[in-house]
Amino acid sequence: MLKGFRDYGPEEEFQRQELIKIIKNIFEKYGYVPIKTPALEKWETLASKYGGGEEILKETYKLEDQGRRKLGLRYDLTVPLARYIKENPNLKLPFKRYQIGEAWRDGPVSSTRLREFTQCDADIIGVKSMKAEAEILALTFEVFKRIGLEFEIKLNNRKLLNGLVKYAGVENEKAESVILSIDKLEKIGKKEVEDELKNKEVPKKVIEKLFSLFEIVGENDEILQKLKKLNLNDEGKEGVTELENLLSFVKILSLKNIKIDLSLARGLSYYTSTIFETFLKNSEVKTAVASGGRYNRMIGKFIGRGEYPAVGISFGTERICEALGGKYKKKTKIKVFVIPIKTFNTALEVTEKLRSEEINADIDLMDRGISKNLDYASKRDIPYVAIMGKKEIEENKLKLKNMKTGEEKMLSLDSIIEYLKSQKRQI
Amino acid sequence: MLKGFRDYGPEEEFQRQELIKIIKNIFEKYGYVPIKTPALEKWETLASKYGGGEEILKETYKLEDQGRRKLGLRYDLTVPLARYIKENPNLKLPFKRYQIGEAWRDGPVSSTRLREFTQCDADIIGVKSMKAEAEILALTFEVFKRIGLEFEIKLNNRKLLNGLVKYAGVENEKAESVILSIDKLEKIGKKEVEDELKNKEVPKKVIEKLFSLFEIVGENDEILQKLKKLNLNDEGKEGVTELENLLSFVKILSLKNIKIDLSLARGLSYYTSTIFETFLKNSEVKTAVASGGRYNRMIGKFIGRGEYPAVGISFGTERICEALGGKYKKKTKIKVFVIPIKTFNTALEVTEKLRSEEINADIDLMDRGISKNLDYASKRDIPYVAIMGKKEIEENKLKLKNMKTGEEKMLSLDSIIEYLKSQKRQI
Repeated sequence: MLKGFRDYGPEEEFQRQELIKIIKNIFEKYGYVPIKTPALEKWETLASKYGGGEEILKETYKLEDQGRRKLGLRYDLTVPLARYIKENPNLKLPFKRYQIGEAWRDGPVSSTRLREFTQCDADIIGVKSMKAEAEILALTFEVFKRIGLEFEIKLNNRKLLNGLVKYAGVENEKAESVILSIDKLEKIGKKEVEDELKNKEVPKKVIEKLFSLFEIVGENDEILQKLKKLNLNDEGKEGVTELENLLSFVKILSLKNIKIDLSLARGLSYYTSTIFETFLKNSEVKTAVASGGRYNRMIGKFIGRGEYPAVGISFGTERICEALGGKYKKKTKIKVFVIPIKTFNTALEVTEKLRSEEINADIDLMDRGISKNLDYASKRDIPYVAIMGKKEIEENKLKLKNMKTGEEKMLSLDSIIEYLKSQKRQI
Repeated sequence: MLKGFRDYGPEEEFQRQELIKIIKNIFEKYGYVPIKTPALEKWETLASKYGGGEEILKETYKLEDQGRRKLGLRYDLTVPLARYIKENPNLKLPFKRYQIGEAWRDGPVSSTRLREFTQCDADIIGVKSMKAEAEILALTFEVFKRIGLEFEIKLNNRKLLNGLVKYAGVENEKAESVILSIDKLEKIGKKEVEDELKNKEVPKKVIEKLFSLFEIVGENDEILQKLKKLNLNDEGKEGVTELENLLSFVKILSLKNIKIDLSLARGLSYYTSTIFETFLKNSEVKTAVASGGRYNRMIGKFIGRGEYPAVGISFGTERICEALGGKYKKKTKIKVFVIPIKTFNTALEVTEKLRSEEINADIDLMDRGISKNLDYASKRDIPYVAIMGKKEIEENKLKLKNMKTGEEKMLSLDSIIEYLKSQKRQI
C-alpha cells in the first residue's frame, strides 16, 4: 500500500458509511443542501492567495493533464466552494451547503494524519450574525450526541485574539506570526511556544503578559466579565461582544460543553471572527475531530465581489471513526443465508422471493456442503441460515437455523418472511 | 471550470445521491459488502499488464509525491480490487464486494464522457459457475426496475466470440485485433468496421463469413440452436454451453429483456467468458449504462497466485442520471421554514424542537421581512412555512402556511409536529 494511504475493508467501511449517513441526515435536517465538486481543480484556483495558504500548497498534489493544464488535487472543500460560488452568481442567500468528500495532502504521516481523508463540511454563506455560528454549534452538538461520543467544544474569536495580542504589547507586524505560535500551545506546550516567541524577538515582558491572558479561565460568563474589564482595543471589544452574543444563543439552545479557550487560534489565516474546535473526552483521539469558524472575507476576495459572510465546520471522519472503536462495524447486512442441498434452482427462487420482500438474503453459489456453508455463514456473522434439502422441498418448508442460539425450526417460506421482517429492527 | 469536469449543484447532487443509495441498498440486499480504496495508486499497480491495458494507461493521470513515488489516479475500481485481494490473502470466498467511487480518465470529452466519473461496482470473486453471472444480472434488473427505466441487457460470451472468429477463418494472431474492431460495430457501423478489417488484412471472404455470423438473430433459444449446428471449435462450444447454462438461470429468475448479441465484444481484453452491456430504451442516452462480465484470469495473474474466478458489473451514474431527467431532483429536503417576526429567540427554540422530532426545519437567520422570507421559501420549494409573530407567541400558536395551496392555519407547536409527521411520506 502506498505510504500515507489505506484501504477500508468491509467492517470499517460499513462504520464509515454509517457515520457519514448520520452526519448527512443531520446536515439535511438543518437545511443544508449538497453539492459535489471535482477532486481536481485548476492549480491557480488552489494556489489563490485567498485559499489555504503557502503551507498547505506545499503539501498539494500537483499534476498536468494532456492539454498541459496545471492541476492539483483539492486539499480541502472550502476553496472549491469559493470557486463554486464564483461560477454560480445567482445563488439565493443564505446558501447553506454541505459536501462530503475526500481531500488530499502530501504531508507528514501519522496514525491520525493520512494523505487522503474524508471531510464532512457544512457552511452557511450570507449570514452576518452569530445566529449562523449558533446553528453550526447546534448541529455539531447533535452529531456527537447521536453517535454517543463525549465531547467539548473550545470556542474563541479571532478579533478578540488580535485584541489580546495587541493588549499584551505585540507589534502589529508580528501579530499574525505570534498567533501562529499560540496555535501550537496545546500541541507542543508552553515552554516550546515561549522559545518560539523569543526567537521571533517578542520581548520577555510581552510574552509574560500574553501568557497571563491565557490564564483567564472559569465559566464562560466569568471569562467574558474579566475580558470586559481589560482595556482592549476596538477589535478586541468587538470580539468580546460577538462571543457574548453567540453564547446567548448557545444558552437558548441549551448546548453544554462549549467553553471559551482564549489560546485557541486555528492555523488558517482566513478566519475573521469565531473559531472553534471539538475535542473528545475519554478518548485515545486527542486531536480535534470537528473544527471551523467564520471567514467573512475569503470568498468575497476569492471571487472579487465584496464581502461574503461565511461560517463553516468540517468533521474529520477518520478520527471520529477511530474514536468510535467497534461501534457501527459489521461484517454483513445479510439476514439469511440460503443453503441448497442439491436444490439450487428452487433455492434460487426462494432467495429471490426473500429479496423481493426486502429481506437481505444470500445463497451459496459454490455448491458447497452444509458444514462449509454453516462455517461461512458463521464467519460472516449472518444471523440466520435457511437449509433446503429435497425433504424440505417435499414438505414445502425450509429449515431456519438461528446461528446465535443454534435453534432450528421447519417453517414455510411465508412464515420465514414474516418472522425475519419482524426481526428487522432487532438484528 | 476545468475541461472535462463538472460540479453537481444541489438538485443534481440530491438525484445522484438517491440513485447511489438505491444501487447501494440493492448491492447490500444481495450480500455485497463495501470496501474503499484510495483515489491514488502506485503507478506500477495501474500499469500492470493485467490491468486496464495500454489504451487506458495513456489516459491515466500521472503524478509524483514528495518522496518521488510515481502515482496515478485510478482509472477504474477493478485494478484496486485486485490489489486489495492481493494484500488481504485471508479473505473468505466467495468475496462479494461493492465499491462506489470516482475514477478519472484524461481522454476525449463528450456529453456522456467526462474525465471524472462515478462507478458503482459489484463483483463476485471465487465463483466459477454461471450462478454468479445470474446473480449479477438479477441485481442489474432490480436496479433499473426500481428506478423505472426501460432497458435491455445484451449478452455474449468471449469464448463463443473467439470460436466464431476462428470459425470465420481469422488467423490466430489476428483474433484479438479483429474482436477489437467488432466491438465498434454498434458505434461506427458495419461499413467502417469492414474497412478497418480490410486494413488489418483480413481477407474479404473471411469478413463476409464473420458478418454473416452476426446475422444470426432471433429468440435466445433459436440463436443457441443455430450456434449448436455450426461446427465451432472447443472454445466456441464451451461458450455456447456457458450461455445456455446462464440463460437457464435467467429463466428461473424470470428476467426478461436479456438478449444474446453475437457482435457484443467489450473492449477490455481481460474478459474471459460472459460479457454484457445494458442499454436504455426510449432514452436519449444511447451508450451502455451498466456493463461487465467474467474475468477469471486477471486477479490471479495480477497477484501471481493461480486462478481467481471473478464476475463484475459497473453502473455509470452520470449516464443513468442523465436518463433519469428530473426524477429524484429536489431543491431541499426541508419540510418547514420558520419565519420569526422579531421573535428570533423563541422561534429558534421552536425550530430546535421541530428538529428534535426529526422534522427537517430551517429558520430565517438574516432578520428579513416576511415577504422576502416567503419568496425565499417558495424559490427553495419548501412545502410549509411557520410564521411566528408576537401575536402568535401570545396565543401559544404558529401560523402554518402551505406554500402550494396558500392555506393558512393557526396551530399549536404540538399540532404542527403531528401534522408534519403525518405528511412525511407524502412530501
